[in-house]
Amino acid sequence: MVEAKIRLYVDHPLAVGQSIPLERDQAHYLFGVMRQGEGAFIALFNSRDGEFLAEVTQAGKRGGTLTCREKSRDLQMPPDLWLLFAPIKKTRTDFIVEKAAEMGAMRICPVSTDFTNSERIRQDRLQAHAVEAAEQCGGTYVPEVADLVKLDRLLADWDPERQIMFCDEALVGAAEVLGAVKGGKWAILIGPEGGFSDAERKRLHALPYAHAVSLGPRILRADTAAVAALTVWQQQLGDWV
Amino acid sequence: MVEAKIRLYVDHPLAVGQSIPLERDQAHYLFGVMRQGEGAFIALFNSRDGEFLAEVTQAGKRGGTLTCREKSRDLQMPPDLWLLFAPIKKTRTDFIVEKAAEMGAMRICPVSTDFTNSERIRQDRLQAHAVEAAEQCGGTYVPEVADLVKLDRLLADWDPERQIMFCDEALVGAAEVLGAVKGGKWAILIGPEGGFSDAERKRLHALPYAHAVSLGPRILRADTAAVAALTVWQQQLGDWV
Repeated sequence: MVEAKIRLYVDHPLAVGQSIPLERDQAHYLFGVMRQGEGAFIALFNSRDGEFLAEVTQAGKRGGTLTCREKSRDLQMPPDLWLLFAPIKKTRTDFIVEKAAEMGAMRICPVSTDFTNSERIRQDRLQAHAVEAAEQCGGTYVPEVADLVKLDRLLADWDPERQIMFCDEALVGAAEVLGAVKGGKWAILIGPEGGFSDAERKRLHALPYAHAVSLGPRILRADTAAVAALTVWQQQLGDWV
Repeated sequence: MVEAKIRLYVDHPLAVGQSIPLERDQAHYLFGVMRQGEGAFIALFNSRDGEFLAEVTQAGKRGGTLTCREKSRDLQMPPDLWLLFAPIKKTRTDFIVEKAAEMGAMRICPVSTDFTNSERIRQDRLQAHAVEAAEQCGGTYVPEVADLVKLDRLLADWDPERQIMFCDEALVGAAEVLGAVKGGKWAILIGPEGGFSDAERKRLHALPYAHAVSLGPRILRADTAAVAALTVWQQQLGDWV
């Protein structure tokens, strides 16, 4: 079987024999930056149909065409896990999105809390980071990055069947909580650097489906806490061996 | 009890009544950047004596003096866990050091492997990152950042009582391996982006104290893998609840 070193997410149906037109920036990346040409093989995935080996059948400066030759991997959906986080500085916010995609979150929701420093995000830029991370990590699914929403509003419309694990000064370890609660649908909520406000903590602690957990004796930065919490969850309830 | 919002690592003995002279850059940071003055309280730690609340007893442009008034926390040593990693791009290398300090590694060893991209590190800069992370995360211990060493040489002098968990295309989950092996002293080895060379993998797999583990079905970047591996270890054998 041919091996493709480049993986590309495309928003297009994929099947053997299917032709996929390339957008201008994809063509620039493949043919300009990566110096691929006609006859080269690229791995394509679209979050729906799995991964396909596609041949470059036409290469131009402003576009091109790939043709799917064979299916190389089935779609592997991540577990039904959302990551909710309060945006922080640009680099660290980018990292959180990248990490969440690598770690196998299904959906990434930036939330604005009482102590959130950053009141705006560039959803399109964050989504592009998630795409790039999925391309890099060999996943066949790109988590959707939602628009920034207030934590208040998010909780008002919350599906009570989705458990929330939130990191707070708790005395109970995350593994213990996950072992006791189980449940299929989950979200991990990472607070802002200043922590949750008293009102938010009170509200969260009162929700029957929200569970405070500890992530060790040191105070983790938000980006570290995101990866650590995703690790604990994936190990215990997710798709890790 | 007075609360100190600023935490500072000092390389000086600490005890109630002890005076600590400040270096020029520390004085600049405390009095210039953070606008502290005489009478302000700062939390000090030195990786040996615990944390002390110290009062600014003299503040100048080029120096100053702090005096320890009371002990605020006992020294909490991290578990005997080393993080070995192949340096990558500057930002991600900085992140790995920061994360290792937050996550409670005792020692951080950059190693150069056959496929390591970066052949030089700035040990002093990385050590400063570890100090800053310890100051931020509330730890009382700063992990030592070692100089870059070749993996070959490191393994030649290895203490066989220190187990190594290395991340490779393994079929066994990290939690399972840690549960089976236990052992007091450990090191986590994170390979470079290009993976280990065949020779390195062969050597590692042949070592009785080295254990290949999987970190899930996606390929994690080195910085993500470092945090994930530290999480699994801390959860199972370390100082997390």
